[in-house]
Amino acid sequence: MSPAPGVEIERKFLVAELPADLAAHPGDRIEQGYLAIAPDGVEVRVRRRAGAATLTVKSGPGQVRTEEELALDARRFESLWRLTEGRRVSKTRHEFPLGDGLTAELDVYDGAHDGLVVVEIEFGSPEASERFAPPGWMGRELTGDPRYANQSLALAGRPPA
Amino acid sequence: MSPAPGVEIERKFLVAELPADLAAHPGDRIEQGYLAIAPDGVEVRVRRRAGAATLTVKSGPGQVRTEEELALDARRFESLWRLTEGRRVSKTRHEFPLGDGLTAELDVYDGAHDGLVVVEIEFGSPEASERFAPPGWMGRELTGDPRYANQSLALAGRPPA
Repeated sequence: MSPAPGVEIERKFLVAELPADLAAHPGDRIEQGYLAIAPDGVEVRVRRRAGAATLTVKSGPGQVRTEEELALDARRFESLWRLTEGRRVSKTRHEFPLGDGLTAELDVYDGAHDGLVVVEIEFGSPEASERFAPPGWMGRELTGDPRYANQSLALAGRPPA
Repeated sequence: MSPAPGVEIERKFLVAELPADLAAHPGDRIEQGYLAIAPDGVEVRVRRRAGAATLTVKSGPGQVRTEEELALDARRFESLWRLTEGRRVSKTRHEFPLGDGLTAELDVYDGAHDGLVVVEIEFGSPEASERFAPPGWMGRELTGDPRYANQSLALAGRPPA
């Protein structure tokens, strides 16, 4: 069965040890900062990835899922980035195939979260998600742990090991 | 002396009684909703005025003054407007001359703030601001009262009379 539109089936793991061939998959640097988060979870963030900058508004957990992305020129990004101080994450994202048509998105955090490495895999069905056997270099599973969401990392910092 | 760039010298008054010739100055309807406000005061709002929609990010009080405005098409405005429920103001703004080169911006609120009418006048210098003698239809002065800022009205509602 395919997932409902807009619903992502993902699993997330701490990376115990970087995969041996990571250097073969050069990453994109991602800088992400939160402008503001409402009590109902509406979040507004700015992001720069590989030179392209965007402002994204996302709905909170209890709302009809909404996500709107607006392009920012370089001047506007710099201007807004200054307003995110103390609410940022930066990381390098490596994407590479895992076999079975799966892709790993491996994020090596730096700055305030230096040392944190996380990998996420998206699945086409709940069955594929359950069937997945994580390779040895993946560590503790983080799926569903809100402390490892980018928003939490940006606001509350890295959870204790 | 002219004010420093980016500094506005304004006075604000409750309107005790609508000026007699208000009907001669048709107004623009303004709908404004807050997506999110950070603890440091960074605010992100969407606004539609006379059919033109924008998303605006403003810095908080302690920060270097920043204001960035992004244009929104009608679909994006509707999508984001839904996320501002419970954090909105709507009003009709009438602009008209007051003499001495001054312009009144008179806001007639509706919806949750129905009955509230406020007028704001911007001055070219502190001296002009001090010299200003409010006409009889202007009521209690609200200059500097944070409860009458749009953000407070949207979040906390209309202050008691």
